[in-house]
Amino acid sequence: MKKLINDPEDIVDEMLEGMVLAYPDRLRRLDGTEVLVRADGPVDGKVGLVSGGGSGHEPTHAGYIGDGMLDGAAAGQVFTSPTADQLSEMVKACDAGEGVLNIVKNYEGDVMNFDTAAEMAAMEDIEVEQVVVDDDVAVEDSLYTSGRRGVCGTILVHKAAGAKAAAGGDLSEVKAVAEKVIENTGTMGTALTSCVTPDKGEPTFDLGEDEIELGIGIHGEPGTERTDMMSADEITTHLTEKVLEDLALDDGQEVMTIVNGMGGTPLMELFVVNRKLQEILGEHGLETWDSWVGDYMTSLDMMGCSVTVCAVDDELKELLGAPVDTPALKQ
Amino acid sequence: MKKLINDPEDIVDEMLEGMVLAYPDRLRRLDGTEVLVRADGPVDGKVGLVSGGGSGHEPTHAGYIGDGMLDGAAAGQVFTSPTADQLSEMVKACDAGEGVLNIVKNYEGDVMNFDTAAEMAAMEDIEVEQVVVDDDVAVEDSLYTSGRRGVCGTILVHKAAGAKAAAGGDLSEVKAVAEKVIENTGTMGTALTSCVTPDKGEPTFDLGEDEIELGIGIHGEPGTERTDMMSADEITTHLTEKVLEDLALDDGQEVMTIVNGMGGTPLMELFVVNRKLQEILGEHGLETWDSWVGDYMTSLDMMGCSVTVCAVDDELKELLGAPVDTPALKQ
Repeated sequence: MKKLINDPEDIVDEMLEGMVLAYPDRLRRLDGTEVLVRADGPVDGKVGLVSGGGSGHEPTHAGYIGDGMLDGAAAGQVFTSPTADQLSEMVKACDAGEGVLNIVKNYEGDVMNFDTAAEMAAMEDIEVEQVVVDDDVAVEDSLYTSGRRGVCGTILVHKAAGAKAAAGGDLSEVKAVAEKVIENTGTMGTALTSCVTPDKGEPTFDLGEDEIELGIGIHGEPGTERTDMMSADEITTHLTEKVLEDLALDDGQEVMTIVNGMGGTPLMELFVVNRKLQEILGEHGLETWDSWVGDYMTSLDMMGCSVTVCAVDDELKELLGAPVDTPALKQ
Repeated sequence: MKKLINDPEDIVDEMLEGMVLAYPDRLRRLDGTEVLVRADGPVDGKVGLVSGGGSGHEPTHAGYIGDGMLDGAAAGQVFTSPTADQLSEMVKACDAGEGVLNIVKNYEGDVMNFDTAAEMAAMEDIEVEQVVVDDDVAVEDSLYTSGRRGVCGTILVHKAAGAKAAAGGDLSEVKAVAEKVIENTGTMGTALTSCVTPDKGEPTFDLGEDEIELGIGIHGEPGTERTDMMSADEITTHLTEKVLEDLALDDGQEVMTIVNGMGGTPLMELFVVNRKLQEILGEHGLETWDSWVGDYMTSLDMMGCSVTVCAVDDELKELLGAPVDTPALKQ
C-alpha cells in the first residue's frame, strides 16, 4: 500500500486538522470530536442542515459546509459511522432554534446512530427531522443496508435543501424539498479497481486485470455483476440505462446530471463519460438543464465513476441553481 | 490498463466534447481544433490570456477558462504539445484588440510552438507577449526542458494575470504580474505510482512496491531521487523544505500554498499533507494568507502530490484573492 498518510489510526484526525487549516474562516471543529461546523454558525433564523458518515468519501460531507448547503458534518473513521454521541453534539451545535434536518445516507450504522442522535437532541427540546437518501438503483438490499444505498445523489439533497433553508424555509418545508430530491434521483456506479483502506492496506475486493464491477457501492460493496472490461461508451450506456429505467421519466423531462469520480479516476475520463451520458439522454428525449462532472462522493482511491440523474421542475431548478459557497462547491 | 475510454486516439476529442457539454454557456470549441475559448469571448477592452499544453493534466488548462482567468486553452494530445497552427488560431480568437499574453509551461515543445504561434499572430498585427513558467525547484534541466519545468504554480500565474486583465490592465501590466508570480513561486512534487498513458497502456516508469520518486515531473519524468516509502509528514517535509530553500523567504513573509493532487490521490490524503505543510511554514516564521487543496494540475492517474508556495504582497493578494468564475476555480 502506498498512501500519503502517517499512522492509519490518525488519518481522520489529521485530515480534519488539514481541512480546518485550509478553510479557517469557514470551518470550525467541535472540541474533542470529529465534527466540523460552519465557523459562523449556527445561523440565526435558519434551519440547520447536517450530515455525516464514514470518512473516505471526501469532499463528502464536510466539503459541503457553508452558505446554501450544510451547517455541520460528522466524520466517522474510514467507512465507519460516526457515533451517536458525536452526531448529537453536531445537531445541538447546528440548531439556531429553528430545528435541524439530518440528511442520512442509507447505511444501517448511519441510520441507527442518527436515529439515536435525534432522540438525544429531542430530549433537549431541539426539533429534529431526518431524511434517508437511497438513490443507488443497483441493488435493493446490500452488505450494509436494508433497501437501497445512499450515494452521490445525496449531494443534490444537500444542495436543494440547503438552498431552501437559506431562503428561510421552515423545517417541514426544508424536509419536503429533501424528500422531493430523493424521489426524483437515481444513481449507479462502476468500479475499475478496488479501493484500499488505510488500516487494511490491501484491496477490499479482488478484480481481475480485465474485469470491472457494475453497480458497485461506495465502500466496495458488491454490485450487480462482474463483466469483462468495456469501453467508456458501453459502461456509460449500462449505468445510464439502469438509472433511466428506474426513474421512468416522461419525454421532454428536464434533468440534472452528475458524472462522479470515485477518487482515483482522472477528470479527463469523467468528461469522456459525460459526452456519452448527454448523448444517451438526448436519445431518450430528455433535456439536460445542468450537468456536473468531478469528484463529489469518492471511495478512497477507487477507479471508476457513478452516473446520477435527477428530474427537475421549476422549484428544484431554482434551489439547485441557487448560489452556494462551500469549499467543494461554489456557484 | 483499465480506463474509462474508448479508442485511445479519440480521448482528447471526446474529452473536449464532454467538457463543452458540461459547460455549454462557458466554453466554445474552435471549429476543427482542440482549442476551447470563452463562449462569450473575446471580451471587449480586455487583454486576452491563453495557455495550453499536452492533455492529461486536467483541469489544467481549459478548466480555468472564464471571468478572471483564461480566455482560451489549447489541448494537445496526451503529454504532447498542441501544434503551432492551433495555438495561432487560439491567439487570434482571443484577441479583442488589446493584445494577448501566452502563458507557457517550460517544456521544449510548448515553448517552440507558442513562439511560432506568436510570430504568426504578429504577422497579422496582433500584439503578443509571452511568459514561461518554471516553478519546479526539483531539477535544473530535465527530459523535456532546458531549465526548470513549469508545473502547478502555473495556476497562480493564470489567476493573478487573469485578475489584472479583468481589472483593465494593459498587456505590459498583465505580463509584469505574470512574471512577478513566476519569480515568487516554487513547487516540488512526488509520485507514489507511475501514470499510465492511454496509448501505451502501461506504467510510464517502474516504481517498486515500497519506492517513491521525489521531484517527479508531471509527465512522469525522472525526479531527484528514489527513496523508500515514507510517511506523509516525512514526504511533506522533504518537498516543503526544498521549495523554501529555493525561495529563501524572510521571516514573517506571507505566502499562499497549494497542495495539489496528481490525479489518483484521494482528497483525504491531500488534507493530511496540508496539515504538515502549514505546521512547517509556521516553524519557518512564514504566515499563510491562503491555502488551496485539491487537483489543480494532474498527471493522468498518478498517485502523489506537489507542494507549491508563493510569496505574496498586497498586490498579489488583491489579484489572487479577486473573484474568479471558471469550471475548476470559483471564488
